[in-house]
Amino acid sequence: MELANVLHMTGGIGDSSYARNSLFQQKVMLMTKSITDEAISALYRSLSNGETICIAELGCSSGPNTFLPVSQLIKTIREECTSNGQQLPEFHVFLSDLPGNDFNTIFRLLPTFHEDLKKQNMRSGDGLFDPSYCFVAGVAASTSPSSVLKAYSKQYERDFATFLKYRSEELVKGGRMVLTIPCRENEHQLSNACRFMLEPLAITLKDLVTEESIEEEKVDSFNVPVYSPSPAEIKYIVEKEGSFTIDLLKTLEHQMDSCEGYNEAQSVRAIVQPLLIRHFGDDNKLMDVVFNKCRDIYANSMAKEKNIFTNVVVSLIKF
Amino acid sequence: MELANVLHMTGGIGDSSYARNSLFQQKVMLMTKSITDEAISALYRSLSNGETICIAELGCSSGPNTFLPVSQLIKTIREECTSNGQQLPEFHVFLSDLPGNDFNTIFRLLPTFHEDLKKQNMRSGDGLFDPSYCFVAGVAASTSPSSVLKAYSKQYERDFATFLKYRSEELVKGGRMVLTIPCRENEHQLSNACRFMLEPLAITLKDLVTEESIEEEKVDSFNVPVYSPSPAEIKYIVEKEGSFTIDLLKTLEHQMDSCEGYNEAQSVRAIVQPLLIRHFGDDNKLMDVVFNKCRDIYANSMAKEKNIFTNVVVSLIKF
Repeated sequence: MELANVLHMTGGIGDSSYARNSLFQQKVMLMTKSITDEAISALYRSLSNGETICIAELGCSSGPNTFLPVSQLIKTIREECTSNGQQLPEFHVFLSDLPGNDFNTIFRLLPTFHEDLKKQNMRSGDGLFDPSYCFVAGVAASTSPSSVLKAYSKQYERDFATFLKYRSEELVKGGRMVLTIPCRENEHQLSNACRFMLEPLAITLKDLVTEESIEEEKVDSFNVPVYSPSPAEIKYIVEKEGSFTIDLLKTLEHQMDSCEGYNEAQSVRAIVQPLLIRHFGDDNKLMDVVFNKCRDIYANSMAKEKNIFTNVVVSLIKF
Repeated sequence: MELANVLHMTGGIGDSSYARNSLFQQKVMLMTKSITDEAISALYRSLSNGETICIAELGCSSGPNTFLPVSQLIKTIREECTSNGQQLPEFHVFLSDLPGNDFNTIFRLLPTFHEDLKKQNMRSGDGLFDPSYCFVAGVAASTSPSSVLKAYSKQYERDFATFLKYRSEELVKGGRMVLTIPCRENEHQLSNACRFMLEPLAITLKDLVTEESIEEEKVDSFNVPVYSPSPAEIKYIVEKEGSFTIDLLKTLEHQMDSCEGYNEAQSVRAIVQPLLIRHFGDDNKLMDVVFNKCRDIYANSMAKEKNIFTNVVVSLIKF
């Protein structure tokens, strides 16, 4: 199976699913709300009345988080419209993720999303929102699997520049793109995402080698295709690539254990399990063992120090 | 669960899946090829060079059949372009079905589709086809479940007119829509689809009541939401609704047992099983019993007479 089909959050709506273990990501989305709101408001004010607004959500995953940013953006535009006495524009929403993403769960949540859009609008007392104004489609994105695996600084620069180039071809002049990227604070250290989330997984896998539950060479050949750039790297690549101007670039800190009901082991599991299954086999018992061990390490780590994660948010305007 | 989420072909790529039991539908698609080809060629010739062609496949299901019509249409346009020395336009393809459809299988087949597009083009010796010219998105359509269940002639007229009205709003002036609809030959008889495909299922369910495997009232309350119009009804409704002019309307006959490797019981199962499961419970053993019995009835029926099915194909142009 191609990595593009494996690299996805855990589907469905079960206990281990991303849909039920993505409070952390939700919190980050809420933290970036003011930035995406500002971007779409500025875009809206630059349009003629009646123009359609196209929104693409890149890496939409599957679950309630899929609809959160879109729902917020539509609400923001509606408020702009209400205060200016303008008619709501039509929205074309493209929910995009890798082909292995659970799009079925997304489509089954669509009626709820439309109901929520209606309610969100009724509450403000200015009439009904007609969901037919909001056309939603799912789009399977492509990736370059081999390059993802060879992730290191130079490779990241090339990949991110390519990403910017293709997105710029899809955007109209003046179009906006807001990216939220887990990052390292500077060039000289590992990202906290690696330190707090992936190192415990590495320790667990090595423990299981010692216990002879899994083979050492299997663990040595296991990679999680993640690279965390620093804010300076992002700025450098965007400016060098040249399709976008940076409207805003800032880092946001977020404490991992501050979400109520948050379960770190389950959250990491929802992200990493499809990769583990591909490499170590579809063994649910082994997965339980791995993430039970991880859970203990996470608990210890959180008791010792605050697990703070850093994201860089960059709001871009197409030249 | 809403009927809109249940009313779908059997997902996945397993033995009972629609993906592996849709030779019959494929044959019908191939029979209508010349009509859809003619429609898209006429549309293409009416465009200025460089305009994007949007194609929506309504009821795309999941499996190889999903990509067959799109692939054919693109090939037809490419041949037009080659013979006129014009550049290939960009295609926006919207694959649409009810929310319960297995879109995951579609997205996982996308890389194969893109590869096939490339090969299809290479063979003709005029260079590579760049798949980025073909943007594909999945769209979950909506339905009105209660009205589907109350399907009878008057209701069908209302539903079909509503369908035409909404589609006409989505199409540009001069836009084309080709519909293929299983039909009755005239107003005075049941459709062959009912007679050959659904009556054996009804007989089987009644047998199982006699054997006390299922309850009589359960069977009495089971409905398959299907209505087969006659060609005259289609013509009448299209003209009365008034958004489209009829470019062509014809019936196509197709013998059921003429597809090599075709398994009627499995084909009906791929369509009806989700409805049966919803009504009688998720009992795989019962489903096996039902469709094994059906298989015998189908075999008898095909030995006695030719199982000929009639479809009406109507090619419409938006006023």
